[in-house]
Amino acid sequence: MNNIGALIFDVFGTLVDWRTAVAREVRTHLSPLGIEADWPGFADAWRARYEPAMEEIRTRGMPFRKLDEIHRRNLDVVLADLGLDDVDETTRSALNLAWHRLDAWPDVAAGLLELRTRFRLAPCSNGNISLMVDLARRNGFLWDAILGAEVARAYKPQAIVYLSAAAAFDLAPGQTMMVAAHSSDLAAAAAAGLRTAFIARPDEFGPNPGETSASVPVDVSATSLLELARMLDSWPDHPVDSPSRVHVQR
Amino acid sequence: MNNIGALIFDVFGTLVDWRTAVAREVRTHLSPLGIEADWPGFADAWRARYEPAMEEIRTRGMPFRKLDEIHRRNLDVVLADLGLDDVDETTRSALNLAWHRLDAWPDVAAGLLELRTRFRLAPCSNGNISLMVDLARRNGFLWDAILGAEVARAYKPQAIVYLSAAAAFDLAPGQTMMVAAHSSDLAAAAAAGLRTAFIARPDEFGPNPGETSASVPVDVSATSLLELARMLDSWPDHPVDSPSRVHVQR
Repeated sequence: MNNIGALIFDVFGTLVDWRTAVAREVRTHLSPLGIEADWPGFADAWRARYEPAMEEIRTRGMPFRKLDEIHRRNLDVVLADLGLDDVDETTRSALNLAWHRLDAWPDVAAGLLELRTRFRLAPCSNGNISLMVDLARRNGFLWDAILGAEVARAYKPQAIVYLSAAAAFDLAPGQTMMVAAHSSDLAAAAAAGLRTAFIARPDEFGPNPGETSASVPVDVSATSLLELARMLDSWPDHPVDSPSRVHVQR
Repeated sequence: MNNIGALIFDVFGTLVDWRTAVAREVRTHLSPLGIEADWPGFADAWRARYEPAMEEIRTRGMPFRKLDEIHRRNLDVVLADLGLDDVDETTRSALNLAWHRLDAWPDVAAGLLELRTRFRLAPCSNGNISLMVDLARRNGFLWDAILGAEVARAYKPQAIVYLSAAAAFDLAPGQTMMVAAHSSDLAAAAAAGLRTAFIARPDEFGPNPGETSASVPVDVSATSLLELARMLDSWPDHPVDSPSRVHVQR
């Protein structure tokens, strides 16, 4: 028995394949308008604007806004870059919900069910609550709570996002494990005092290889959530410091 | 088809019978210490300090703190009032978790399952996230998200709590229905622009009668969640104003 009470999850890339579904949704909405484009490339261009937009909120004092709003502003830029200024408002609104219609990697639903028998589970994503709710309904994820950026009013990798997720479960950081396919996310979680699990998702970026192993120290490394569940079964030898409660200042 | 996208629920009294379980838990922890008391009366005394403690946060500028912390401070006062200053710290901590071990009224789990097929569902309680998570696990509630006081960083009946729950689901207040057994809760939700459903829970206060009908105008009134589900089936004639999104300022 280890002393971990909750697992919190990165979602885009770690649990769901954003690139395939966004390319599909963009094609579905724009092809009927007679538009042809490199649809996976459209998805990549849209995603590429995600990090810089959040950085404006993290470091330049912009007020917090939902990821849906960031996605929409970025969509307008991508369409303009492709000379597609004629795409109407209704189509843009529908298109922005592409991120609510992503499909999970094949191991995820079964893996979460298995992990749920032993741990409290929540997403700790930069995606907003309604986006997480729609992905959960679509893919059969059963969460204990939706935590992450919108609850913390801040974006990963800011420490407050990981700390407020642990605190919501009444757990110390060291009793909480962050699960992600990205070393940068896990490095930030570890720096905040959390346990970390790396999940390899080499197909996240299509032909551009994703991380096959973590480039930072992690507590556990697996290739699927089912493998993670098995590894946590036989993980008795990691004593965890456990102050009873943490209080997050805001 | 009505235009309601989500139902949000009061929990203490509306979904769970707090009085019976708190009395049971207090007896379980204090009887072995040789203490005898009026256990339901202990539960009533503890609950009676809930409203004034929240009022300090709502109106006197006290910083937000979780309901678990409020319950604990109030427990210390109730024990002192009964001359039980000798109760040790370990017992007090265990006792405070009584509120995490409440049982649902008999119709609730089935009613939520039925309602979940048509609406997004979340608690909108003054209880903290971990408390809601424990009640959900205990009673088999499947929520889409845990919303309410801890997410809004404010306590009902402040409007921001209802409005932030609607906004988390990307819904206008008029597309969101508050479900509660207390007229005061529903009056505040209606004033914030939400639809309202009253559920009669006359046994909430034991021999002291609870509300059998709402004392304020509500959209729907029922005696169980299953009845509420049937009534919302045949509720096509309430046009709902539906601005597409609301943005809650913080």
